[in-house]
Amino acid sequence: MAFYQETLTLNSRRAGTHEFTDSVAQVVTRSGFDRGLVSVFCQHTSCSLVIMENADPTARRDLEAWMNRLVPDDDPEFEHTLEGPDDMPSHIKMALTRTSETVPFMNGQLQLGTWQGLFLWEHRVAPTTRRVVVTVMGEARQT
Amino acid sequence: MAFYQETLTLNSRRAGTHEFTDSVAQVVTRSGFDRGLVSVFCQHTSCSLVIMENADPTARRDLEAWMNRLVPDDDPEFEHTLEGPDDMPSHIKMALTRTSETVPFMNGQLQLGTWQGLFLWEHRVAPTTRRVVVTVMGEARQT
Amino acid sequence: MAFYQETLTLNSRRAGTHEFTDSVAQVVTRSGFDRGLVSVFCQHTSCSLVIMENADPTARRDLEAWMNRLVPDDDPEFEHTLEGPDDMPSHIKMALTRTSETVPFMNGQLQLGTWQGLFLWEHRVAPTTRRVVVTVMGEARQT
Repeated sequence: MAFYQETLTLNSRRAGTHEFTDSVAQVVTRSGFDRGLVSVFCQHTSCSLVIMENADPTARRDLEAWMNRLVPDDDPEFEHTLEGPDDMPSHIKMALTRTSETVPFMNGQLQLGTWQGLFLWEHRVAPTTRRVVVTVMGEARQT
Repeated sequence: MAFYQETLTLNSRRAGTHEFTDSVAQVVTRSGFDRGLVSVFCQHTSCSLVIMENADPTARRDLEAWMNRLVPDDDPEFEHTLEGPDDMPSHIKMALTRTSETVPFMNGQLQLGTWQGLFLWEHRVAPTTRRVVVTVMGEARQT
Repeated sequence: MAFYQETLTLNSRRAGTHEFTDSVAQVVTRSGFDRGLVSVFCQHTSCSLVIMENADPTARRDLEAWMNRLVPDDDPEFEHTLEGPDDMPSHIKMALTRTSETVPFMNGQLQLGTWQGLFLWEHRVAPTTRRVVVTVMGEARQT
């Protein structure tokens, strides 16, 4: 069993979910491993990861709208507001979703279900650059 | 360190939490490894994983009822309703819980706490078949 | 690739978030590995893990207060109340956050973002002892 690691830079141009399944699949390809496990780690506390339905965009729109209703920007109880009204809601939405995700692969292919995609969920309004560490653990093809 | 992988098929006959700790423990046994880490990955976006109290069934009933109140089926804001009123709530409940979970093992035994069990949380009403990929990474016993 | 495992005992003196990033970093150091992945697993169902902003304490205070409003102790719908009014809310808060977390490391250093810390989130009011299993998978430095 061997180990391969890359850091991806993702530009999230707006709040919402941004698919990067292909970028992770390419890291698995570059690892040269046939089967194993890939870990994806988000290095931020105001965006997060989620594996979500990637066929019908209304599913993600409804998810984002529901989360915005659950954690509204204008909550008068928040004390941590230095970076603006979307600062504290971003941390809460992050805590309710995921910082790390692990996905198995076989024959060099991610074993995602038919309707699954891997998304960076940007919770801040302003465009920013995000870093995700991809760690691949696996085995070469048995020959 | 070596690597072992199996896909489990789970039949979730109703919405709610279904324990499958024993099935994962059996995969660890079949791997033949003495110690390591097992990753469990759910290949769907309308059911999810959770590690929950497995002694008193009222704990899980209360958890399910609370989640159903937080994410009701009849939300008029939802646009993604093609597969019925439980379609979009299922995706949201999935995003709020987990798609992947990792559990350590020692001496061939899952290192779960005394009251912990691993559950598939079915969010759809209609019975369906679910697939979970179990990846074991570990070492044989030192002799 | 090799494998190293330790169980940490954490004393959570009060409900709320307790950082233990340094304890996990020390396990990575003791493993002797240069690069790899560390998995952290919480052996309880009434406390959980979260990776959160660790610079400004108001961020964590707001997160905890928001969660307490979302899942109040005095919910008359709860049936699972044997251990007190904070029993069932603790399980729910756990399910909404994380039981396991994985973090990559390089050059012996955890690859956390600038503002990220790893926290045990105690959801019970009474002081208690908590156990967290830390599993390190990695490689020695190439020489």
